[in-house]
Amino acid sequence: MAVIRRMPRYFRYVDELYQNGTARISSGALAAKMGLTASQVRQDFNCFGGFGQQGYGYNVENLRASIREILKLDNSHKAVLLGAGNLGRALMTNFNFAQSGFALTAAFDIKPELEGAQVAGVPVMAMSRLERYVAEENPDIAILTLPRHAAKEAADNLCRWGIRGIWNFTGVDLHLDGVAIPVENVHFSESLMTLSYLI
Amino acid sequence: MAVIRRMPRYFRYVDELYQNGTARISSGALAAKMGLTASQVRQDFNCFGGFGQQGYGYNVENLRASIREILKLDNSHKAVLLGAGNLGRALMTNFNFAQSGFALTAAFDIKPELEGAQVAGVPVMAMSRLERYVAEENPDIAILTLPRHAAKEAADNLCRWGIRGIWNFTGVDLHLDGVAIPVENVHFSESLMTLSYLI
Repeated sequence: MAVIRRMPRYFRYVDELYQNGTARISSGALAAKMGLTASQVRQDFNCFGGFGQQGYGYNVENLRASIREILKLDNSHKAVLLGAGNLGRALMTNFNFAQSGFALTAAFDIKPELEGAQVAGVPVMAMSRLERYVAEENPDIAILTLPRHAAKEAADNLCRWGIRGIWNFTGVDLHLDGVAIPVENVHFSESLMTLSYLI
Repeated sequence: MAVIRRMPRYFRYVDELYQNGTARISSGALAAKMGLTASQVRQDFNCFGGFGQQGYGYNVENLRASIREILKLDNSHKAVLLGAGNLGRALMTNFNFAQSGFALTAAFDIKPELEGAQVAGVPVMAMSRLERYVAEENPDIAILTLPRHAAKEAADNLCRWGIRGIWNFTGVDLHLDGVAIPVENVHFSESLMTLSYLI
């Protein structure tokens, strides 16, 4: 699991190399870019059978494709967003969902005045329509950009309705009732606290 | 540095225990909550002299205070925000800066219509006033919630004007000219890619 958690970061660097037209890279050069050691890089990739060749290094295009496959970024998962406030709209407007293998198909909000709006081409619907939408459209994950106090109830409902994963921006650690589904938390404060130490 | 990076996460869990009135906790119980091993927890805290007592565990209040001190969360660092769009406003409105030892004192945007506005009590100023503001008010860090294409120039300027750290939400890896200052990146896509794998 620790290796899996590092894969998105590998993907970010390898994708940048690919976009810049780099054809191959050694484990040492990749490690230096990422602040890792060459042996860590080789060890991580060996978990998946290794993608390199001794004395040649890694073919960037193949490495990128392999990481995409491991992370299943070529799938077209469907996502819905709960809470079309500032943070929700920021994600809808600026975040490249397709790059991570997702399509954002709808957003939901309790505010009646948002109902019927479109944000970056995605429709905003009344929260009361969510259960039916999940039943009919089978989205894979839900993105929680709701206020903290609404997080747990929403997550428990989604879980009951069959959602398969939660991307949680609420800052609340979700202890879900019933079936455990994967929850990825985005905790802004952790990186700010690290910065507090570093300056 | 790896231990430092884990400290904000320790803080989050220990703070929750403290808020719930828990007086003490063993390394094993804390580890179980966090998905770590007891020996990892003890080893991490031993880097800072260890905060526990054999057979007693950790006094939650003292442990919390020690982590706050390590991360310098009691300092009152000043922060400015660049880019008062949806993401910037989401942070201004919802994020608890004080909890991480920061006070957000001003936001800057290039859109003339935002000038003079207040968001959650924080004034929004014209971007052209930033250089002077930094010189006069000496903010410690800058928060970048700008569009990607504007990130590098803004960061290089800030660096030149004497800012001491950058909290970077732009998704661009900043390779700064001149003096190197700490940059903490918030990469939303990494956790979404992990979720893609997990579901």
